[in-house]
Amino acid sequence: MKLALLDELREKNPIAYNISNFVTVQDLCNAVNAIGASPAAAGGAEETGEAEDLTKICSSLTVNLGAFVDPRIDNIDTIMGFANQYQKPIILDPVAVGASPARKKRAEALLDRHPVAVIRGNAGEIAALAGADWQAKGIDAGEGSADPVAIAKDLANQRHCVVVESGKTDIITNGSVVVKVYNETDLFKLHVGSGDMLSSIIGCFCGITTDYFEAAQVATGIFSTTGELVAKTVKATQPSAFAASLIDDLSWIDVATIEKQIRFD
Amino acid sequence: MKLALLDELREKNPIAYNISNFVTVQDLCNAVNAIGASPAAAGGAEETGEAEDLTKICSSLTVNLGAFVDPRIDNIDTIMGFANQYQKPIILDPVAVGASPARKKRAEALLDRHPVAVIRGNAGEIAALAGADWQAKGIDAGEGSADPVAIAKDLANQRHCVVVESGKTDIITNGSVVVKVYNETDLFKLHVGSGDMLSSIIGCFCGITTDYFEAAQVATGIFSTTGELVAKTVKATQPSAFAASLIDDLSWIDVATIEKQIRFD
Amino acid sequence: MKLALLDELREKNPIAYNISNFVTVQDLCNAVNAIGASPAAAGGAEETGEAEDLTKICSSLTVNLGAFVDPRIDNIDTIMGFANQYQKPIILDPVAVGASPARKKRAEALLDRHPVAVIRGNAGEIAALAGADWQAKGIDAGEGSADPVAIAKDLANQRHCVVVESGKTDIITNGSVVVKVYNETDLFKLHVGSGDMLSSIIGCFCGITTDYFEAAQVATGIFSTTGELVAKTVKATQPSAFAASLIDDLSWIDVATIEKQIRFD
Repeated sequence: MKLALLDELREKNPIAYNISNFVTVQDLCNAVNAIGASPAAAGGAEETGEAEDLTKICSSLTVNLGAFVDPRIDNIDTIMGFANQYQKPIILDPVAVGASPARKKRAEALLDRHPVAVIRGNAGEIAALAGADWQAKGIDAGEGSADPVAIAKDLANQRHCVVVESGKTDIITNGSVVVKVYNETDLFKLHVGSGDMLSSIIGCFCGITTDYFEAAQVATGIFSTTGELVAKTVKATQPSAFAASLIDDLSWIDVATIEKQIRFD
Repeated sequence: MKLALLDELREKNPIAYNISNFVTVQDLCNAVNAIGASPAAAGGAEETGEAEDLTKICSSLTVNLGAFVDPRIDNIDTIMGFANQYQKPIILDPVAVGASPARKKRAEALLDRHPVAVIRGNAGEIAALAGADWQAKGIDAGEGSADPVAIAKDLANQRHCVVVESGKTDIITNGSVVVKVYNETDLFKLHVGSGDMLSSIIGCFCGITTDYFEAAQVATGIFSTTGELVAKTVKATQPSAFAASLIDDLSWIDVATIEKQIRFD
Repeated sequence: MKLALLDELREKNPIAYNISNFVTVQDLCNAVNAIGASPAAAGGAEETGEAEDLTKICSSLTVNLGAFVDPRIDNIDTIMGFANQYQKPIILDPVAVGASPARKKRAEALLDRHPVAVIRGNAGEIAALAGADWQAKGIDAGEGSADPVAIAKDLANQRHCVVVESGKTDIITNGSVVVKVYNETDLFKLHVGSGDMLSSIIGCFCGITTDYFEAAQVATGIFSTTGELVAKTVKATQPSAFAASLIDDLSWIDVATIEKQIRFD
């Protein structure tokens, strides 16, 4: 894993364009800022001209399907089209597609029309898009009998992209090779928006290299390892303190520290 | 007061569907998560199909009329209709209806069309809906000459629902019986969104019992008591530290701790 | 600088109406609340009737062009019209106008139609509106060769308003007189939304005096000085801790403390 990408990210300070859900958007922006990129979060609410302006100057586009501020699927479709046109990698976070057939249909329509670089979701979301047998629970992962690794590989092959399935063990795959990151803490789940943050940080790294599989591994490794380190400094019952320290620590975490703590294969 | 509902809530982990205002929505979701439910917050922005999907899987719907992301009253009307159709209790938070006659009219139109389980507001909001003499001040409660208990009972009888009027003393009534919770801290008022959080936590408890009067009491008792306990650990000039610790402490607070501290009659 | 305006603000507790971006809106409301005003943040999403109600009862209107929740430029235009009609001062925060020509055009159209009391932006935003040579970078200030003071004076003269250009040194000008505030910390830049907060606090002070130049100076002086004081209590790598303490300290900061620490000329 080329963790040195972190230094390169901070040097290049890429503009990370985010269509975010309005629940967790400030966290995303602060995390993006902390890790060393420059957030532009217009929420999919921007006019076409503005969206094209922002696409031109950005290095990547992260699309979070959580709670957008309108039934503005048409607008998101247009912006994803701009990203393809200007060759900016798209990172898709298909929030809660396992909880609502209508939402899943919308996410699939977007994926049918626009190639993406990375899809990042929890087990329930990835399973829903892969068409696997799984029972999601609202925004939570839920549970299923299928093999998470096989599901992630399936989806990566179906959509010709990198898939990141985050959870206790994070699975990153390009459809053939699989990398697993074992660093974790239950506090990620207790704080709403941890997954959204990871998607946006993957977006930052996809903005500085065309090797999206490498970018996704590094982003996930840094995020999960930093979270695990932060968790040692707060109690298991302090999701707010955890979230604040997570952003703080993303602003100084360095390659040497990550290398010492990361566990992956 | 059946405080043991807290243990039942954590065991059942109900999905709490929230149409939230975009100002305080992340706090709401984190509070809902902390107390032991699973938040689904699409902000009233969802398409009809998605709204119906979410209504089917949720245990309750909390509608916050604060700052919705559009003049989407029609959409909210549709979702409240789904909640009635699928027999999911609705909790209405009529933010600032005392500050704007136009907003009050919209809230009343919703109440005329859809029976709700609970209305939760401050003195100014409850007075405005009850048609009582009161001078609200923007989003703040303001002051009036009428008797708050009589006003709350009036509104409960007019709308055939439970009314929670939160403030220094919280008043919970079904129109005949009145319960008062005395735990309090001025920090609730200094942090924007405390009332919104309470409404959503009432929503969580209404998702596990059909006795909405009991659910409203327990939710209010736990929230106010936890806030009072947190206030002892921060200074009166630390609204941010208070808000963070409030969410943290909601994640571990237990029946025994509440029982020792709660003051009500 | 009439710092005693702070005491007057807390006594009058004016209603500060905010059309905020959804990224930082809760921070804004908490900062407005902490400094001693009463926030009303409906995000430009309100219906015409509600917008008129809120304009009537407010003391000032702060319009943040960051990420509004819709391409609702028409709605914002209407509300700024109400503010002019009811003689409420408007504070405009032209977020990222340097990053997108389309956005700049929208901001200029609003300024062409509605006189404003204050424009608050970073160097890149002020330069874009003044028509100066400058290279903004997304939401960040970027860099240019022109003289920031001359640019700020230019814009103030072009738009007949007060201009606040915030940065390491804050420049406040009415087009002829220039005041500079030197208090600062890099943490302002590391936390997304610091500038938005300042705009809204300027809005609070414009709500209690018609001397908007004085109001802008006092608001900027208090905000930057408080930030510098808070920065001494946290590490340079703690943007989240900084943001939380900033809101906390705004709630108690007093004239005597500011007077001891402020550096301006």
